[in-house]
Amino acid sequence: MAAQSVVSTSAHTTSASTSADTSHPVDLGPAAALSCRECGHRVPLGPVFACQECFGPLEIAYDFSAYEPEELRRTIESGPANIWRYAPLLPVPADVATKPNLNPGWTKLVKADHLARELGVTGGLYVKDDSGNPTHSFKDRVVAQALEAARAFGFTTLSCSSTGNLAGAVGAAAARAGLRSCVFIPHDLEQGKVVMAAIYGGDLVGIEGTYDDVNRFCSELIGDPAGEGWGFVNVNLRPYYAEGSKTLAYEIAEQLGWRLPDQIVVPVASGSQLTKIDKGLRELIELGLVEDRPYRIFGAQAEGCSPVSVAFKAGHDVVRPQKPDTIAKSLAIGNPADGPYVLDIARCTGGAVEDVTDTQIVDAIRLLARTEGIFAETAGGVTVGVTRKLIDSGALDPTKTTVVLNTGDGLKTLDAVAGTGATATIRPNLDSFKASGLV
Amino acid sequence: MAAQSVVSTSAHTTSASTSADTSHPVDLGPAAALSCRECGHRVPLGPVFACQECFGPLEIAYDFSAYEPEELRRTIESGPANIWRYAPLLPVPADVATKPNLNPGWTKLVKADHLARELGVTGGLYVKDDSGNPTHSFKDRVVAQALEAARAFGFTTLSCSSTGNLAGAVGAAAARAGLRSCVFIPHDLEQGKVVMAAIYGGDLVGIEGTYDDVNRFCSELIGDPAGEGWGFVNVNLRPYYAEGSKTLAYEIAEQLGWRLPDQIVVPVASGSQLTKIDKGLRELIELGLVEDRPYRIFGAQAEGCSPVSVAFKAGHDVVRPQKPDTIAKSLAIGNPADGPYVLDIARCTGGAVEDVTDTQIVDAIRLLARTEGIFAETAGGVTVGVTRKLIDSGALDPTKTTVVLNTGDGLKTLDAVAGTGATATIRPNLDSFKASGLV
Repeated sequence: MAAQSVVSTSAHTTSASTSADTSHPVDLGPAAALSCRECGHRVPLGPVFACQECFGPLEIAYDFSAYEPEELRRTIESGPANIWRYAPLLPVPADVATKPNLNPGWTKLVKADHLARELGVTGGLYVKDDSGNPTHSFKDRVVAQALEAARAFGFTTLSCSSTGNLAGAVGAAAARAGLRSCVFIPHDLEQGKVVMAAIYGGDLVGIEGTYDDVNRFCSELIGDPAGEGWGFVNVNLRPYYAEGSKTLAYEIAEQLGWRLPDQIVVPVASGSQLTKIDKGLRELIELGLVEDRPYRIFGAQAEGCSPVSVAFKAGHDVVRPQKPDTIAKSLAIGNPADGPYVLDIARCTGGAVEDVTDTQIVDAIRLLARTEGIFAETAGGVTVGVTRKLIDSGALDPTKTTVVLNTGDGLKTLDAVAGTGATATIRPNLDSFKASGLV
Repeated sequence: MAAQSVVSTSAHTTSASTSADTSHPVDLGPAAALSCRECGHRVPLGPVFACQECFGPLEIAYDFSAYEPEELRRTIESGPANIWRYAPLLPVPADVATKPNLNPGWTKLVKADHLARELGVTGGLYVKDDSGNPTHSFKDRVVAQALEAARAFGFTTLSCSSTGNLAGAVGAAAARAGLRSCVFIPHDLEQGKVVMAAIYGGDLVGIEGTYDDVNRFCSELIGDPAGEGWGFVNVNLRPYYAEGSKTLAYEIAEQLGWRLPDQIVVPVASGSQLTKIDKGLRELIELGLVEDRPYRIFGAQAEGCSPVSVAFKAGHDVVRPQKPDTIAKSLAIGNPADGPYVLDIARCTGGAVEDVTDTQIVDAIRLLARTEGIFAETAGGVTVGVTRKLIDSGALDPTKTTVVLNTGDGLKTLDAVAGTGATATIRPNLDSFKASGLV
């Protein structure tokens, strides 16, 4: 399917811009411009992330005006079994599927009947299992969008600051695309995460400092000639990157038979994923691909990093930063950029934001594994644990169709469940087995 | 699509049989009987694995006589994006996709152009990447077949002997299906593998002994009343289990556009996977789904466990057992049951069996990650390393279409590449970065 809107602009803006080869026209499909989420000011597509007028976050504005629902649905359904079936709704060129990339997405939506029985859900419970992505987390979805933006803007190095999952996703995507990668991490990460970040052969730089120090360094590098030609997926390419989370909404609705879920439970780190899932669901309504009916979005955090949950419960509009201390490290962002938007969406849709303790996270990981055979990383323990808590408190209606996100793989956070071991140890004979009490 | 052949037999045989509830008719779709690979003796479908006449291995005989190629192809193409699209060709009931299971398969066939350039392959190089399965190894394919057989025979406990990957696959499949699982492992496995085996909540029994001791114990248990109602996926359900590997052949051919690859490189542990891929390719020819043209099958082993490779090079028909000593632990079967069949297939198709050192395995893991963004477990390093060696020796023709299997995930064998680390460590400032030599 051809993109409906080809925007030919160059990317030169003066504020919060970064250097790249923008001498060729930018084709990012239906993406028409960047628009400030706060003041609505529009600028041409480019590697910029903050509004020149008010410093608000920029996001993609689309031109979907030429789409007709039935034709669009047919186009999507005949597309590939990955996120590119939704290329007409993403900031990517129409031929994106022909370029070397990891082709993430179209992960399983698992009907979780055993888990539903344990939790008392009667209206249909589903787990959207993003551990099936190429590097086993939802990060592949967002990095894939950033990669296309990097190509469009002529960047030759893909980069990011990361505490682990993102580093692997960027390294793998760059390797597959034939780009250089240079990824920045705190120098004292766990060995497993360092291996995952380094194995793809790009440059991996350990920084003597905290994740905040790494972030500050990356912002400095973007403004320096040394960062010329570098696309930082979660900084100067962030408006494109973030749109990848919309594909979770699209897939859930399509996998439910082009129907919105009544309730959806989403982990909250920066809050970007939750806001983009909401954006995706609204787009589906506006495009006429699903019936317009109410849905409720719930945010899930770990108690040890719960700035949005605390603000929600206190009735605040602003989020007070926290110093994270939780096993759910992939959600451990103490000062979440999109926190206020999460509060707004949870309140407007009739949802909530809730948190669970580390013990409850581990219990929920085990519960999901035992009932559905899905081994989730800690973030999945957070969403399942919060779902249970929300049902118990009555905030989540067990008679409604509910989707819970698992955004990562248990193999990446083995330490969280390290105590898990054998039921029994026996000698290699029947007598010893029979004495074990297992038969 | 309805199964073409419904066989109604009970499973009682006297030799190598195990107890189960066989009072109901057995519906395993097109599976018509069990047939001895050595003497051709046929017995009804049941939980048996060795021929009563000659003790040869039993395998599934099918009734595909009613199939018409174009209709069958349409049925497959309109099926689900998992192995059940091939249900008409597997020993499973026609409604298998409606039962709770992990829905493995339909993993990516990655066109590996960067790797092809490094290896000098000009005829098209593909990696069939089975790390995308639910528990991240090809074992999910085979366990899914064993699960349906267990259901058909009325088994209530799913079991196996394992050194790791299989234990997790069985635990997850049983959890999802709502069956009990009880899995046997050597008591001194690495902690990560123990966690993966235990997390799904089934019983996990550590046995004080080697993997051979574990195997012997399981054979003892099958003959004992304590094992009544137990389906051991890789023992009494092995004929069904093994058929799962055929789906690799089906998927590769369909993903190539219903075309056979010229050459395919397959890891060899017991040898079962290679023989079933050959069986699958032959079925596609016989069913008229692909053009009948020659293909060559190559086996890949680690030098530290290379009994089949050694026999191939020596021109022997029998395989002399070895004591394994290699980092490729998922391939470390020193006395491979299907070794002679592997030799036969490699020789008949014009292929070969080759091995690589542990160092070459690690180099190949890095090569695949760097060129294609795929992080393979050691078995994937074996196939990629052997592919390189076979090209260098002239045994594999670089001008032909070649498919290399990656059967597992690098996250499961992190120790093999534990030395991988940061390119540089810097202070969080630009001067320190510029001094690192990376810009």
